[in-house]
Amino acid sequence: LSTTLSEAQKRLLRSTSLAHLGTINPDGSPQVTPIWVDVEDDRPVFNTAVGRRKERNLRRDPRVTIEMTDPDDPYSYIEIRGTAELDEEGAEDHIDFLAHKYLGVDSYPNRRASERRIKVYVTPTSVFGRVD
Amino acid sequence: LSTTLSEAQKRLLRSTSLAHLGTINPDGSPQVTPIWVDVEDDRPVFNTAVGRRKERNLRRDPRVTIEMTDPDDPYSYIEIRGTAELDEEGAEDHIDFLAHKYLGVDSYPNRRASERRIKVYVTPTSVFGRVD
Repeated sequence: LSTTLSEAQKRLLRSTSLAHLGTINPDGSPQVTPIWVDVEDDRPVFNTAVGRRKERNLRRDPRVTIEMTDPDDPYSYIEIRGTAELDEEGAEDHIDFLAHKYLGVDSYPNRRASERRIKVYVTPTSVFGRVD
Repeated sequence: LSTTLSEAQKRLLRSTSLAHLGTINPDGSPQVTPIWVDVEDDRPVFNTAVGRRKERNLRRDPRVTIEMTDPDDPYSYIEIRGTAELDEEGAEDHIDFLAHKYLGVDSYPNRRASERRIKVYVTPTSVFGRVD
């Protein structure tokens, strides 16, 4: 298994398809939630907020899986396992960037004044893909 | 949190959208794969084959999460946590049923002669949904 993303896999991560993030709950069971995603350098990047279940899961256990299907090919998908790194720096701009990419708007419409956004970088430890 | 599926949630499970299954790997990390899904009585049902990673994961730890987004509403999704029960009975007919639903074909086109299919029933333990 590769630990680097191919160009086709990066194209998929840059598309407007949703990705699906797996994290581990405190009791060891799986959590899966839809996420907006993009790629910076060679790492998938997504965004969450302090206190959300996935953010708490990631602080406790940074192991994640990001799964993404290619809407143009029902048999293609990628599964990226990796380690999450949480960063507040740039997180507010990043959620606006993702809102622009996915919704075509200038700023994230669901912002709450009390919310602290978190940008999450995923360093791949294995990349499985039927998208070459 | 509810342990039963609403009618709208069952409609989504009966649609031709892909679902996303979270299982637990032997090392405790999350696995996420796209699945074809449907619903029987009040349980989500999917199909796998003996020896696949998710099948081995499920035999070791039957806790799963099924996540599914509504393509008509980018903010809607359901997350169903539950316990998987594996059954060989009816599994061959069931993969043909799913292939018909998702691909419009009469029988599953990727069948391998050596493969033993498994039908997986998920008994919900909690249902979270922005699809009511």
